[in-house]
Amino acid sequence: MPLPVNPNLSATELPPVMEARRWIEGKSFPPARPLINVSQAAPVEIPPLALRQALAEAALNNPDAHLYGAVLGLDGLRSAIAAKFSATTGGRVSPGQVGVTQGCNQAFCAVMAALAGPGDEVILPVPWYFNHKMWLDMAGVTTLALETGPDLIPDPEAARALITPRSRAIVLVTPNNPGGVEYPPETLAAFRDLARAHGLALVIDETYRDFDSRWSPASGGVPHDLLQDPAWDDTTILLYSFSKAYRLTGHRVGAVIAAQPLLAEIEKFLDTVAICPGQLGQIGALWGMENLGGWLEGERQEILARRQAMIRGFAALKGWKLIGCGAYFAWVEHPFELSSDQLCRQLVDDLALLMLPGSYFAPEGTRAAQKQIRIAFANIDCAGIATLFERLQDYSPAP
Amino acid sequence: MPLPVNPNLSATELPPVMEARRWIEGKSFPPARPLINVSQAAPVEIPPLALRQALAEAALNNPDAHLYGAVLGLDGLRSAIAAKFSATTGGRVSPGQVGVTQGCNQAFCAVMAALAGPGDEVILPVPWYFNHKMWLDMAGVTTLALETGPDLIPDPEAARALITPRSRAIVLVTPNNPGGVEYPPETLAAFRDLARAHGLALVIDETYRDFDSRWSPASGGVPHDLLQDPAWDDTTILLYSFSKAYRLTGHRVGAVIAAQPLLAEIEKFLDTVAICPGQLGQIGALWGMENLGGWLEGERQEILARRQAMIRGFAALKGWKLIGCGAYFAWVEHPFELSSDQLCRQLVDDLALLMLPGSYFAPEGTRAAQKQIRIAFANIDCAGIATLFERLQDYSPAP
Repeated sequence: MPLPVNPNLSATELPPVMEARRWIEGKSFPPARPLINVSQAAPVEIPPLALRQALAEAALNNPDAHLYGAVLGLDGLRSAIAAKFSATTGGRVSPGQVGVTQGCNQAFCAVMAALAGPGDEVILPVPWYFNHKMWLDMAGVTTLALETGPDLIPDPEAARALITPRSRAIVLVTPNNPGGVEYPPETLAAFRDLARAHGLALVIDETYRDFDSRWSPASGGVPHDLLQDPAWDDTTILLYSFSKAYRLTGHRVGAVIAAQPLLAEIEKFLDTVAICPGQLGQIGALWGMENLGGWLEGERQEILARRQAMIRGFAALKGWKLIGCGAYFAWVEHPFELSSDQLCRQLVDDLALLMLPGSYFAPEGTRAAQKQIRIAFANIDCAGIATLFERLQDYSPAP
Repeated sequence: MPLPVNPNLSATELPPVMEARRWIEGKSFPPARPLINVSQAAPVEIPPLALRQALAEAALNNPDAHLYGAVLGLDGLRSAIAAKFSATTGGRVSPGQVGVTQGCNQAFCAVMAALAGPGDEVILPVPWYFNHKMWLDMAGVTTLALETGPDLIPDPEAARALITPRSRAIVLVTPNNPGGVEYPPETLAAFRDLARAHGLALVIDETYRDFDSRWSPASGGVPHDLLQDPAWDDTTILLYSFSKAYRLTGHRVGAVIAAQPLLAEIEKFLDTVAICPGQLGQIGALWGMENLGGWLEGERQEILARRQAMIRGFAALKGWKLIGCGAYFAWVEHPFELSSDQLCRQLVDDLALLMLPGSYFAPEGTRAAQKQIRIAFANIDCAGIATLFERLQDYSPAP
């Protein structure tokens, strides 16, 4: 007899990215039409040589690279993150308000473990990032689905109507995964005010912040001014990832920015689940922050060029509708009769395209789940995007 | 107003190792009498040069070292772990029954998340490993404390008396942390039978297995024969760590060995908390398994020599009692009036010794909590152990 499984875990859906990988398992794609994999938001290129050299040098000669470190991360990295978030937002973050994690997913889990227990509630706009939903399901926390309109921007008034005495947090992702949209600063400020008025946390996942189209070194333009609020840490919690900025996905380095007393609770979780973040990854992240500022701006420009290619491509593609496009993602609606899930499976065989259906990002039965699709376009360059549209052109699935 | 904290997390104790580090913060120790830190089970030496070279080489030239990988780890590493556990136990483990994690703590959390939800119960022998207790507290799982006798070996009959319909698992650590004792194979088999009879999981944390004194390459001696049971995976789950064997603490690599359907549940947890284990650490772990077998046996012999030095030292130390000694740990009882907690704080100032009091490993009010102490002796060489005993000789705390 198999062992009984925690019902909260059995009720949690399978990891979509792994599921989708299984769709392509054992299949071969001809060299003339290789698989275009836009399922996972992951840089396909490796870090620049200088960063790899820094990692190799540390592996050889820096003893700390191999030993346990502090639960909340390297002091130098915490300071650098605090300095960067202070400088880029005009706000004030101290190193003691920063914790380093084994990737941004873990930052989310740690924050949620600190805020919400079984039976509590957390508000997630739809479409959501699946790993957020999965953690809440595993933890026995109820997800309150906040529907969004045609622009995918969540409405604070609609959120207010969901709040109950068991509500603990509102989670926003900007630039959004999977929707691609960049939330206006007024929206974030309104959510902050709403959360503060109800004693909730406002958790903002900024994994894709470095690719926000609104950064403007010249004008000092920033995507939001939440950290300029001197009391920001009574409500606001930020999450960050080093995976995309410096192509360090395989090293698992993320961060959480929050009030110090909350970080002391988060530290208990991280000590138990992680002991400490990987040292080499942290060394690489710090090296990246110190040396790759200009390079990262080039990366951002490249992603923004790909975004333009996506916008142009969908404008010319009959029937399809581009709902959101930014950071790493396009969120689109297809024009066919079948469900997104069926279509995505069929696209593997018909066009050698792997993308994730909306059903992974939205409650069953919603339009988002049935008709919409996430395309992680940042994985492919502009030539690849052109190929993607060539394949979709005039396509319709066999009935 | 600070944000309300998940009561399961506020009720969880602070990480002991971090707490103890705070005892020494800001203190200086004269060169003539430097701090002897035996609080954390961590190799203080870095990995051998050849392994560091392999890591550096991968950082420079192996693209996979920087990219996302499979949630359950590198195929090659899973195969190597399966082969090692099969060969060293005379049992049969397939690569599909192995998952790689970001350290062995995470393996424990993932297994427990798969087995036990809020309100369920898990049996832990006393003294326990504090991070096990912390995870259960955070998850709202009730710990059933299984008292042990003077030999620290848990009694299956005593465990049977604790089992209720909400019980889900029994957790054993062998060689034991913090107790240092190596559990006899009959004890493990009896616990396996007990767990199987009640539909519970038997989770065995074998973090220190490579340092078990009973390995005997000549006679084929093995510490237990659980994997020889063809149906082992209906009950038994093993946890393993690469931190101690190859000195890879800072890379965070561990493993879980369990039934494939359970691993599919564990995969959901790991996808959400980790996405994947760090790639470089996995590459290092695999390299170590393939190349450092002889070196590891030398490490074991060195730890066993240190263990003998501890046994001899306590035999000659008046008043103190050595209760358990093996793997990385000695578990001792001190002869003084004050509590272990007070004594350990005082030992920092009086003797420049940092060790962890029993209160971190046992329920309040027990003799283990009040009078006993864990010494992670593997951190120091035989000369260091001699110094430790010189300092303890004739010591008694100021009243």
